Amino acid sequence: VSRTPRPGRAAIGVDIGGTKVLGVVVDTEGHVVGEARVPTPADPIPAGVGPPGTEVADAVTEVVVRLQVEAGRGAPVGVGVPGMLDHNGFLVFAPNLHSATGSDLAGLLVERLGGEGAAPPVDVQNDANCAALAEHILGAARGTDDALMVTLGTGIGGGIIAGGAIALGARGFAGEIGHMLVDPTGPPCPCGRRGCWERYASGAGLGLLAREGALAGRLPEVVALAGGDPEMVRGEHVTRAASDGDPGARAVMVELGWWVALGLANVTAVLDPERIILGGGLVEAGELFLDPTRRAFLELVEGSAERPPIEIVLAALGERAGAVGAALFAQGGWV
Amino acid sequence: VSRTPRPGRAAIGVDIGGTKVLGVVVDTEGHVVGEARVPTPADPIPAGVGPPGTEVADAVTEVVVRLQVEAGRGAPVGVGVPGMLDHNGFLVFAPNLHSATGSDLAGLLVERLGGEGAAPPVDVQNDANCAALAEHILGAARGTDDALMVTLGTGIGGGIIAGGAIALGARGFAGEIGHMLVDPTGPPCPCGRRGCWERYASGAGLGLLAREGALAGRLPEVVALAGGDPEMVRGEHVTRAASDGDPGARAVMVELGWWVALGLANVTAVLDPERIILGGGLVEAGELFLDPTRRAFLELVEGSAERPPIEIVLAALGERAGAVGAALFAQGGWV
Repeated sequence: VSRTPRPGRAAIGVDIGGTKVLGVVVDTEGHVVGEARVPTPADPIPAGVGPPGTEVADAVTEVVVRLQVEAGRGAPVGVGVPGMLDHNGFLVFAPNLHSATGSDLAGLLVERLGGEGAAPPVDVQNDANCAALAEHILGAARGTDDALMVTLGTGIGGGIIAGGAIALGARGFAGEIGHMLVDPTGPPCPCGRRGCWERYASGAGLGLLAREGALAGRLPEVVALAGGDPEMVRGEHVTRAASDGDPGARAVMVELGWWVALGLANVTAVLDPERIILGGGLVEAGELFLDPTRRAFLELVEGSAERPPIEIVLAALGERAGAVGAALFAQGGWV
Repeated sequence: VSRTPRPGRAAIGVDIGGTKVLGVVVDTEGHVVGEARVPTPADPIPAGVGPPGTEVADAVTEVVVRLQVEAGRGAPVGVGVPGMLDHNGFLVFAPNLHSATGSDLAGLLVERLGGEGAAPPVDVQNDANCAALAEHILGAARGTDDALMVTLGTGIGGGIIAGGAIALGARGFAGEIGHMLVDPTGPPCPCGRRGCWERYASGAGLGLLAREGALAGRLPEVVALAGGDPEMVRGEHVTRAASDGDPGARAVMVELGWWVALGLANVTAVLDPERIILGGGLVEAGELFLDPTRRAFLELVEGSAERPPIEIVLAALGERAGAVGAALFAQGGWV
């Protein structure tokens, strides 16, 4: 396994997020030399507007075409998608991207990008696997061959680095860690089941914990930031109040950290990573979130006192990790 | 990866179980040509009888010496141990083998096996990893490179086959799946935490579910088999009554299957195996146990209707799987 950059060409990487479709151009040294974004199409979309994936493919195409000005029309395209992709790039199941479930996204993109000539090669990958590759090559997972990338956004994504490579599993579905069941009687999940880890340990989970606290009258500062209505409390109100030192908001961050650590301990029981990298919107709260997560992890992981410590660190590449990793997959030659 | 047997010598494999230390001699074709067993030393052992691992090493030595009559004194020795072994064979943490926690079991065995000449090579591995290797080479995991071996005994062991090899993790602790937390307010676990999966989905879990049902008056047939005392109900009473068609006992098996399936679904979310192999004492109940487990798994695994089915099958090598796998590790040359 070599960490030396070896790709011979720039590539375009696009990440389909919960709110935006973000694209970058990555050069042969791994540097970002261009960026473009459009809003993610509303999901789910009213029926009858085209085959599955139509709107998402249109949005990705818009981003790619803009970036081709910088990268050239032949530049390979990588796309990171939130969901279960099989080894052929078919999007089998995507609880947070219903409108593209059942689509051959690569095929839709090749149709759109072909124009009058040949389309560039298109490589579709799971978005958390993209983030994991980017952090492994360029970010916080450098220097270890056994790491876990966890993206804590609207939902939770997982990318497994095992033996220096991204683990895909038998059918390509490895790393769906947000859908470990931690409370089978818990709140319903878009995946169709109840009590998935991502109901508690994501941005959605922070909002849930916060509204519970607000409705119970424990979070006056947070409710004030939300304009006085407990039902309007969102995660960002909690993190802002916690930054300002509000004890109620800090207690919610501790509770959130406990839920995050619970799932990290469970994945650690299965995989035994050397390092865990946390990315996604939730980690913008920084130490307010990281400190209680680390403390709870020490309580929740098996053999905590006996095993070597496992580092829990913040992702280095921020919101671009998925797009950069998609470009690295498309370039090839990195590992 | 080749499945063709290639080792050049017979080996001795020993598995340290909850009740017995079982040893086998495996020849160059993978056949068992000798067997010996002694009871597992009581655990924990009263303090002051020697360094950690003394009694366990003595018991393993007794088995090995008996098998050397068949295999020869130079035959390599493999040992399967229930617990977290690091890459140097040091037993870091063993909640079900307290007396050997903190021991260098390989070193203790080399001391004992050396006698007047050189000791044979000794290779210590996690017991579930041994079972996984045995099933992969000779049993129910043949023909797939991505499988999960789960031993459901007193506790739960896990062995991960990923890309055709046994996954060890960064420090050697991968596959500790019995200690995923499924109910952090649940019953205490010997590992020091609460609500580990193995509290519910193991032989111990079956006993717990059965005593709950018995004390609630739901299991008269089972209580009769236990001599009339609900507190004396054990797992074997439930499986016997279930075999006889008792509806109460069958309901307990359905509940057990649900707990087993919950953990299997969670490991599947992380790893995406193609096949899951169930071994250990609990699977002696056969279809009475397997059928409800498979049904519950279909409800609990993410994307059940969309993903290709995952086979859940019984182990082929029975109680010898761990010992045979330990011998295969010691032989080397199989994969």
